[in-house]
Amino acid sequence: MSERQHFGRLALIGLGLIGSSIAHACKAGGLVGEIVGYARTAETRATAERLGFVDRTANTAAEAVAGADCVILCTPVGTYRTIGLEIAPALAAGTVLTDVGSVKACVLRDLAPTVPDGVHLVPGHPLAGTEHSGPDAGFAELFDGRYVILTPPDGADKAVVDQLAAFWRAMGSMVEIMTAERHDRVLAITSHLPHLIAFTIVGTAVDLAEDIKGDVIRFAATGFRDFTRIAASDPVMWRDVFLNNKDATLEIIQRFTEDLTAMQRAIRRGQGDVLEHRFAETRAIRRGVIDAKQADMPVPPSREK
Amino acid sequence: MSERQHFGRLALIGLGLIGSSIAHACKAGGLVGEIVGYARTAETRATAERLGFVDRTANTAAEAVAGADCVILCTPVGTYRTIGLEIAPALAAGTVLTDVGSVKACVLRDLAPTVPDGVHLVPGHPLAGTEHSGPDAGFAELFDGRYVILTPPDGADKAVVDQLAAFWRAMGSMVEIMTAERHDRVLAITSHLPHLIAFTIVGTAVDLAEDIKGDVIRFAATGFRDFTRIAASDPVMWRDVFLNNKDATLEIIQRFTEDLTAMQRAIRRGQGDVLEHRFAETRAIRRGVIDAKQADMPVPPSREK
Repeated sequence: MSERQHFGRLALIGLGLIGSSIAHACKAGGLVGEIVGYARTAETRATAERLGFVDRTANTAAEAVAGADCVILCTPVGTYRTIGLEIAPALAAGTVLTDVGSVKACVLRDLAPTVPDGVHLVPGHPLAGTEHSGPDAGFAELFDGRYVILTPPDGADKAVVDQLAAFWRAMGSMVEIMTAERHDRVLAITSHLPHLIAFTIVGTAVDLAEDIKGDVIRFAATGFRDFTRIAASDPVMWRDVFLNNKDATLEIIQRFTEDLTAMQRAIRRGQGDVLEHRFAETRAIRRGVIDAKQADMPVPPSREK
Repeated sequence: MSERQHFGRLALIGLGLIGSSIAHACKAGGLVGEIVGYARTAETRATAERLGFVDRTANTAAEAVAGADCVILCTPVGTYRTIGLEIAPALAAGTVLTDVGSVKACVLRDLAPTVPDGVHLVPGHPLAGTEHSGPDAGFAELFDGRYVILTPPDGADKAVVDQLAAFWRAMGSMVEIMTAERHDRVLAITSHLPHLIAFTIVGTAVDLAEDIKGDVIRFAATGFRDFTRIAASDPVMWRDVFLNNKDATLEIIQRFTEDLTAMQRAIRRGQGDVLEHRFAETRAIRRGVIDAKQADMPVPPSREK
């Protein structure tokens, strides 16, 4: 294993936007010795081989993980239990098993019970993405300057956590460690609620009369187009997020609805001071986001121009 | 008046993002003979003179419009009636009076009654903006490739509407003509509701416990940061939008809330098929927005890098 290599053989289960981007980043940096990829459909496996971001593909997840030093699940979180049961017999002791799912408590619930003794489970979540999905959507710079949150379970091997953190840093990420429960609460507001709202408002537009809908699309600037971008994200992945982060999501929807109702009431009563005060407050949060250098979105070259 | 000039003297009432961008675009294209600017505060007037996008500033709105061939109100729509009463005695017959407000029916309600005979009122709305405001936020390319909606009242002079349309086209815009009522219904969903939701969700985050709030800001990618950008827009302008497009906004909030409640119910009951079906539907709308070439947002050089 050369000096730059963090793992000998890396197995990627799932070759969509995130899986393919990890592969591109590993290739670009020479971070692993070999990449074996598995995807459910033959079409995705063929695309991965054609684009060359994996060294080879496997026809089953179990075949892909055989002999791997690190296995990363890059499929919707709803698939973890099934995949866990399938790969368990093929996982060698000492293997690092991680994932990139947007919900973390469910990984300990669904995947952990399937993991054989001696295999190191350290769930993870790169806070990076675009509205594009599929094996041809990936690019090596996706994780550059983005946070990756690791949620090691109680008793996780510190050396393994450090090894995984170093791997993500080599892809350009900043690594944070927290509990799965805290991750799910924070992401419920930063990511899950915004996506649910974006899906909802675009859905509200879908239901409008045809003549108004045409105008809504033509006159999407300004405001609506940002929601349509978010709402173009992968439907199955997001379905699984909401099903698997139910409690935190429902709680934040409830808070949001109460706040929106208060705005609605202020509009109906013509309470301009209430609206202006609330609108002014939110600017400080934007300033914080800019200062945290999280304001811009990574976009692969020549997209949507 | 040279061949490229659409108006001899242009008066801009309000020198924020939109007013200053019109001035920059006029200067860049040589579209008017002279630009006189008025802003409420001496500070903004001084900034306008320092940046040089106006030829001179006036100390009152009435002084600014004296001798102007075209007057554009670029202030929050809540100011129109007061400004209309103030400038009425100074408006010469034949002057074209327009605006850039985000609500249009209220212009006919508030401004039209103040307009002297012989002055041509043709309300307008450029669908362009950034989250930045103020006289130093403007740039000449803001309207390039963006729609401008004109809402001429019944009996408006067609030649004047054509003249104003040509002026906007010279700034790079695509011009559409519709009734004020239709404009307000379409914008309620494409712009007013998205902004209200963005203000609300960022406000919901403001109210979270301090330790979670810090994490929300740090981990704003992906999803939340798009809302913070929208929610950084000018508070007074937006207050006036909601107060002046009350009926259409309240109706679309009601529809949205019903749709969000249906999503909430599906999450609580674990109805993955309902969620996935709805999420998949919304992708077609994004495709329409991209095809309409409204997917990207104009950003002035070297902002937020």
